[in-house]
Amino acid sequence: MNRKAIGVFDSGLGGLTVVKELKKVLPNERIVYFGDTARVPYGSKSKEVIVRYSKEIAKFLKTQDVKMIVIACNTASAFALEELKKELDIPVIGVIEAGARMAVEIGENIGVIGTKGTVSSKAYYNAIKRIKLGANVYQKACPLFVPLIEEGMIDDPITEEIVKKYLNEIDVMIDSLVLGCTHYPLLTKVINKLTNGKIKLINPAEETAKEVKMILKELHMENFKREKEDQYFVSDEPENFKELGELFLGFELEDLKEINLEK
Amino acid sequence: MNRKAIGVFDSGLGGLTVVKELKKVLPNERIVYFGDTARVPYGSKSKEVIVRYSKEIAKFLKTQDVKMIVIACNTASAFALEELKKELDIPVIGVIEAGARMAVEIGENIGVIGTKGTVSSKAYYNAIKRIKLGANVYQKACPLFVPLIEEGMIDDPITEEIVKKYLNEIDVMIDSLVLGCTHYPLLTKVINKLTNGKIKLINPAEETAKEVKMILKELHMENFKREKEDQYFVSDEPENFKELGELFLGFELEDLKEINLEK
Repeated sequence: MNRKAIGVFDSGLGGLTVVKELKKVLPNERIVYFGDTARVPYGSKSKEVIVRYSKEIAKFLKTQDVKMIVIACNTASAFALEELKKELDIPVIGVIEAGARMAVEIGENIGVIGTKGTVSSKAYYNAIKRIKLGANVYQKACPLFVPLIEEGMIDDPITEEIVKKYLNEIDVMIDSLVLGCTHYPLLTKVINKLTNGKIKLINPAEETAKEVKMILKELHMENFKREKEDQYFVSDEPENFKELGELFLGFELEDLKEINLEK
Repeated sequence: MNRKAIGVFDSGLGGLTVVKELKKVLPNERIVYFGDTARVPYGSKSKEVIVRYSKEIAKFLKTQDVKMIVIACNTASAFALEELKKELDIPVIGVIEAGARMAVEIGENIGVIGTKGTVSSKAYYNAIKRIKLGANVYQKACPLFVPLIEEGMIDDPITEEIVKKYLNEIDVMIDSLVLGCTHYPLLTKVINKLTNGKIKLINPAEETAKEVKMILKELHMENFKREKEDQYFVSDEPENFKELGELFLGFELEDLKEINLEK
């Protein structure tokens, strides 16, 4: 047993979709979350910059005495997972491998949508090919999805048009579609509508949570009795984070603080 | 006469619209530009964070021996102009005052569109009221415009729908509309089409360039003979900046370097 918390980080609030899944399968674990809202979004930035930011955040989470780090951000998972694994003496898990594993279980033809950074990193492409070399992977960057979701236009006909536009550019029959950005599960309904539910949508957050549970069990690091509350940290605009974050999570963010990492 | 350069900064590449106007009215001046592409966008971040970033950039531009600093970013002008004026011993100019002055010349009813940060700062609102207390100012944040422009969807019917949606929310007859974000002048054609050209669109970059010229003349700081080339610095992704930046500017960015300010 290990009573320390699980550290989770993301470029902003999207990573709360991973927290939500973690809390479903590991209700006794305490979460310490960091959202880098002063430098969000990560999706359009370079590997070098994302690795630097991720290292700063991991260093901060270590000061919070976490037993494990989950990179909830797809872009940071794509760019910084290996670097953080090398640098840290605790387990580090990203969302890409888990998403890739789920996708290959469905069929050979796999679509992947994500930010520019995630798509250009080819992280899902490579992870899928490592598991099943014969799989066909069709990637598409969808940089308008995050701003549309953050504008609250989830059920809007304009969003439907934009989803249609992006999906049409994946011009083949796919069996599954990896929602390779933490915000995208919020578009599940509209994507299912446009594809008549014929494509299996993969939310890597779900599989990641299962993987975290498995690893904690293997290493005998589970917590069986919840004692302290979760903590949330952001690098800017806590009020905004609280408001949108509670929508993502469905419950109140009680312990939320602002902290500046760039010192 | 003063042969030093004019320092110009922005959160990313939008500020190149200001450079373009500066080069029209001051062809002999040398420009040193900084685009904070590692932390772009500024529009959704807090005053505290924007002031910190702006101070770091001003400090860097001072090492490049500039005679003046132009804050080409609307959000940074709104949040950091006064702070930089206090801190620096060279003239500092933002884009807000110039835009406000142009707007009141057209009529009493003024629309302002910009990022969330610019709109919530009420910087245009306050600047317009200082010039003409009786003016009516109608603000609207349009957070989807920048990602649409950066997706190259300038002539797209989807963009037309989104422009219509935002403009409809300014539910009064306005005489002029301030394009309060450096990217927005790229939407001039579609906005003119939707408003039948009945609303005068204000591009603050144009007026800012005129103001810079006037100040340099007053202080006898003009450069009459061009000797060195312009220099461009970014904090991330120079290739991407070069490609899109040349579209914004219409000429080649020859001297472009990457630099990390967060040390």
